[in-house]
Amino acid sequence: MTGTLYGLGVGPGDPELITLKALRILKEAPVLAWPAPLEGDSLARSIAEPHLDGHHREIAIRMPMDVARFPAQQVYDTAAAEIAAELDAGNDVAVLCEGDPFFYGSFMYLFGRLAETYPVEVVPGVSSLMATAAASGAPLAARNDVLTVLPAPLEEAELVRRLKEIEAAAVIKVGRHLPKLRRALDAAGLSDAARYVGHATMGERQTVCPLTDYPEEKAPYFSMVLVHRRRDAWIDGRGQEEAGE
Amino acid sequence: MTGTLYGLGVGPGDPELITLKALRILKEAPVLAWPAPLEGDSLARSIAEPHLDGHHREIAIRMPMDVARFPAQQVYDTAAAEIAAELDAGNDVAVLCEGDPFFYGSFMYLFGRLAETYPVEVVPGVSSLMATAAASGAPLAARNDVLTVLPAPLEEAELVRRLKEIEAAAVIKVGRHLPKLRRALDAAGLSDAARYVGHATMGERQTVCPLTDYPEEKAPYFSMVLVHRRRDAWIDGRGQEEAGE
Repeated sequence: MTGTLYGLGVGPGDPELITLKALRILKEAPVLAWPAPLEGDSLARSIAEPHLDGHHREIAIRMPMDVARFPAQQVYDTAAAEIAAELDAGNDVAVLCEGDPFFYGSFMYLFGRLAETYPVEVVPGVSSLMATAAASGAPLAARNDVLTVLPAPLEEAELVRRLKEIEAAAVIKVGRHLPKLRRALDAAGLSDAARYVGHATMGERQTVCPLTDYPEEKAPYFSMVLVHRRRDAWIDGRGQEEAGE
Repeated sequence: MTGTLYGLGVGPGDPELITLKALRILKEAPVLAWPAPLEGDSLARSIAEPHLDGHHREIAIRMPMDVARFPAQQVYDTAAAEIAAELDAGNDVAVLCEGDPFFYGSFMYLFGRLAETYPVEVVPGVSSLMATAAASGAPLAARNDVLTVLPAPLEEAELVRRLKEIEAAAVIKVGRHLPKLRRALDAAGLSDAARYVGHATMGERQTVCPLTDYPEEKAPYFSMVLVHRRRDAWIDGRGQEEAGE
């Protein structure tokens, strides 16, 4: 019998936001795998760490940042081979995924390599999207509003075009694209509708402010910008309820 | 000291997909409130039920389906008053929310009425969006794709217009709007790219199939349609990895 590959959503940052299911599988699996930069800690592993008891074998998937495509493929090929060897030996492998495995997660690269050969189960997690909305103090989206998730690495013109169409948006992967995002929001007339949320659910590191008040030129990895064209209408929800569908 | 109002995401259906944090607050709070139809069970309460031990006072928020705006407001006004009385007495109140409280959830109507007066904490949950992607066996979105969440009650022409622009989409609140959605997908040339997911994470009730194979004229409340313009490219992810941002 081969082992099962689990894509385990460990939640957005607060270790208490892991699900009972992910925790059970985490404790039962003999092998963990987790993504990490070439040097330094794995964010996914740090979220799970309070729940680890030292019994796991661990596979680090260390990805150089700012690399061309070829080395990235090699890293996933190597990791998939290591994981496959464990699965062939009958051992379950839990891949730790920040947030949710299938929401813009790197788990897909392992899934694409292994899902045809081995049993795979994806355990959904609390994503950064939901954590960010909770931190921001306003609904992510409501009623029949269209919600758009926009990756900040898109071209500036494309960002502007998409932003002009949005009702509610969550801009992800902000990082070094923050100056471009500010220009795009300006061009779309939405600068005053944008809120910055950094390190949602991570205790005192959590930051929430209007984007216009956020002083940095670059956003941390764990950050998002929420844009609500009609935020006031949601907050002051009285008189606008709709009946069930 | 007044009590705290918690918006508690209890997850998408599987009781094991509740978070440790939501479970802790659920057990500690003396009062629960939950939405339900005028007659019958509360979906949110049924998700939490395996974790209940009988010590709670419970406030039912019973909403007639297909009502005009005025009665819906009255229902939330009454519920907010009942909850406020508990908070005034120093009791924490946990409002059970299917999935995540701030992802198109009715919690916003209580939040809008109570957040200015009482301390409120929103505990994010695993949303139907992430549960549906996990069940579907493919990423919800990846790389720099734009993800659009489309409520099916939108006008048909608006659905068509939005669908023509999407890279990945999740269509929510499908219900009786399914025939209209099928027409809109046809008009946008995306019928073959749409997958139906019903009752995600709910054991044997979970259904996943191409939308073209789903025989019903109406979809259940717990259902979603995922549309991936380039699904094959994701599944067969080799050779398309990108480096970190």
